[in-house]
Amino acid sequence: MEEQIKEALAEIQRGTAEIIDIERIEKLIRNYYENGETFNVKAGFDPTAPDLHLGHTVLIQKMATFQKHGGIIQFLIGDFTATIGDPTGKSETRKVLSAQQVLDNAETYKEQVFKILDPEKTKVMFNSKWLNELGTAGIINLASNLTVARMLERDDFSKRYASNTPIAVSEFTYPLLQGYDSVAMDTDIEMGGTDQKFNLLMGRTLQKAYECKKQQAVLMMPILEGLDGVQKMSKSLGNYIGVTDEANDMFGKVLSISDELMWRYFELISSRSLKEIEQMQIDVKDGSLHPKKVKENLAMEIVDRYHGTGAGERAKQEFEKVFAKKDIPSDMPEFELEAGIWICQALVDAQLVKSTSQARRDIKANAVSINQEKVQDEKLNLEAGEYILQKGKKSFAKITIK
Amino acid sequence: MEEQIKEALAEIQRGTAEIIDIERIEKLIRNYYENGETFNVKAGFDPTAPDLHLGHTVLIQKMATFQKHGGIIQFLIGDFTATIGDPTGKSETRKVLSAQQVLDNAETYKEQVFKILDPEKTKVMFNSKWLNELGTAGIINLASNLTVARMLERDDFSKRYASNTPIAVSEFTYPLLQGYDSVAMDTDIEMGGTDQKFNLLMGRTLQKAYECKKQQAVLMMPILEGLDGVQKMSKSLGNYIGVTDEANDMFGKVLSISDELMWRYFELISSRSLKEIEQMQIDVKDGSLHPKKVKENLAMEIVDRYHGTGAGERAKQEFEKVFAKKDIPSDMPEFELEAGIWICQALVDAQLVKSTSQARRDIKANAVSINQEKVQDEKLNLEAGEYILQKGKKSFAKITIK
Repeated sequence: MEEQIKEALAEIQRGTAEIIDIERIEKLIRNYYENGETFNVKAGFDPTAPDLHLGHTVLIQKMATFQKHGGIIQFLIGDFTATIGDPTGKSETRKVLSAQQVLDNAETYKEQVFKILDPEKTKVMFNSKWLNELGTAGIINLASNLTVARMLERDDFSKRYASNTPIAVSEFTYPLLQGYDSVAMDTDIEMGGTDQKFNLLMGRTLQKAYECKKQQAVLMMPILEGLDGVQKMSKSLGNYIGVTDEANDMFGKVLSISDELMWRYFELISSRSLKEIEQMQIDVKDGSLHPKKVKENLAMEIVDRYHGTGAGERAKQEFEKVFAKKDIPSDMPEFELEAGIWICQALVDAQLVKSTSQARRDIKANAVSINQEKVQDEKLNLEAGEYILQKGKKSFAKITIK
Repeated sequence: MEEQIKEALAEIQRGTAEIIDIERIEKLIRNYYENGETFNVKAGFDPTAPDLHLGHTVLIQKMATFQKHGGIIQFLIGDFTATIGDPTGKSETRKVLSAQQVLDNAETYKEQVFKILDPEKTKVMFNSKWLNELGTAGIINLASNLTVARMLERDDFSKRYASNTPIAVSEFTYPLLQGYDSVAMDTDIEMGGTDQKFNLLMGRTLQKAYECKKQQAVLMMPILEGLDGVQKMSKSLGNYIGVTDEANDMFGKVLSISDELMWRYFELISSRSLKEIEQMQIDVKDGSLHPKKVKENLAMEIVDRYHGTGAGERAKQEFEKVFAKKDIPSDMPEFELEAGIWICQALVDAQLVKSTSQARRDIKANAVSINQEKVQDEKLNLEAGEYILQKGKKSFAKITIK
């Protein structure tokens, strides 16, 4: 049993950025193995954006790890702030969700996360329930537990305050509400990204203030880099792999990442054991394993996870059929164009021709292809999507049309 | 009518420390005189302390002035914060009031203020009504209307922040709640002390944020000095005249103030017109009027107000009977002694005799008086109260026994 506990702890610590109160986590896991008692692991999600990408799954896979060792996941949908109206009408960016939208989004979440999580060990919770009950007096009492100075220590607040960037007084309430969630939910461990540290600690602070019997441990996962290997994976930056992406897209996107980033994804996303990963690294180093092969394995694992076993293999075959066998370079210039663009203009914008009249002549001469199909219609307009444009045998451009 | 409006404005401006948006006040008064339309004048009171003293009446008399010119007084009892519990149990100073206590205190307030205000033109209101209705979401929206930086500009907050004295986040909500009261109450003018400026302006800010049709004007009264002429009149400093004080006490206390302070009280508390007051000042200056006479008039006016017409005259007669007609100096040494003190010890402590045995001999010789009555009993113990001790013809001392 000691061995099991030790392994469980190693699995839990894998890839984490920081853990606060690992002793408590160990105690909870030991108590599960010795007495069969489960414990509550909370992670919060924004109800306005139920489209998960691999950046989110770093956390969700850690949740799955906890489920293997006694954790009951409190999948918290932070619907409270999303249902707040803005009576002043000043905030155009604040998206107000109806109760029905929140429920719909929760369903979308479930479809996605239950590909990773065990539904039997997952409670989907909504914080509007207890936060609305707090009321005016409750929230003022809540706010009496923290000082303004302490709040201004939060990294982003201190920077904004120092640079005279306005902070609304209401923003001070959000960390408090997140902390109060842990009080109301009887949370043992809260998980989040490293950027959430202040708010995650708030749960500990408030559980103490409200004289709860427990103070939650905190486990922070690093922020996953996007396909570019530099910036945080995010939908708005376009550098993401969505968990609902088509199998072939998913496969292609994973293959596009750098070798360095590949190892990072292995650590944070793959289910391979650390031992296996280490062995692969040795094999790549001594030349007995080609990194592309390793990347394909990662891509297949990810596709299998979201599209079912075997889907990875099929995506691989498709990928090879379309790209690998024909002489398409793996690197080519990339352009972003607007939906509905005329093919001739696209060729100009992608710097494959000098003018639209030149483009028209090339099309007539059968010298232009899209995704390796010759273009016949010189009046063609392109819809949203990703395409490989080709002129002649050697000029390529990848275009993304939005 | 122009004359009436002009006079009303002069009356309203009398003794004020600062007015914000006098144009709006003029408009409201003009509208009353021209169209008979009333307007709402708000002032807030703390429900935990319904014992009013003259310091409070500076504001209340200004409210009465407004009532003469179209103002409907919104007598706001700020019961909301008093009914908030403290779940953390940390604040021992926060006095939680029950709904019944709030109502009882409101009755006590009414008894006192209706000696000055016209009940027909007064609405007693309780802010717990609309503040409890706000709820969690409402208060967060409320707090979205102000920045942390703006809040920290408030004088006391900025000082505390600079000196690292903790400010609870909840304290930021109180000015917001006061401002929201004005939104909920449809207030046209809010009154308060100069120390309330920040909170009074909050009403204007929030009425704008909530797109009210009006933005309240603000009228601030100066803080009234207590009997010492230096510190703010306050119960805890003991330098106050309570509106429920006995008529004779009230009269005596007014007579004890300095001539300089007397003119200040005339301006802020008396109902005499500024013209009359000016004339008295001229007469005192050229010697045709004795300042003591003026002070007696002020004292009588105040006693009349709180004890009914004629009470001032009676108090004056009583005062004269006790003190003025017998050659008691207006100035004499004062001492504070403890209740139950033996008369002989009191004579020693008041420095009228050297020893208690000397005191005993003087009493036997009929040479000692209390309040001009000969002391017969050398075993007398003195109860709480104010007394004039006299030994022989020329030695006096005023003692206050607590």
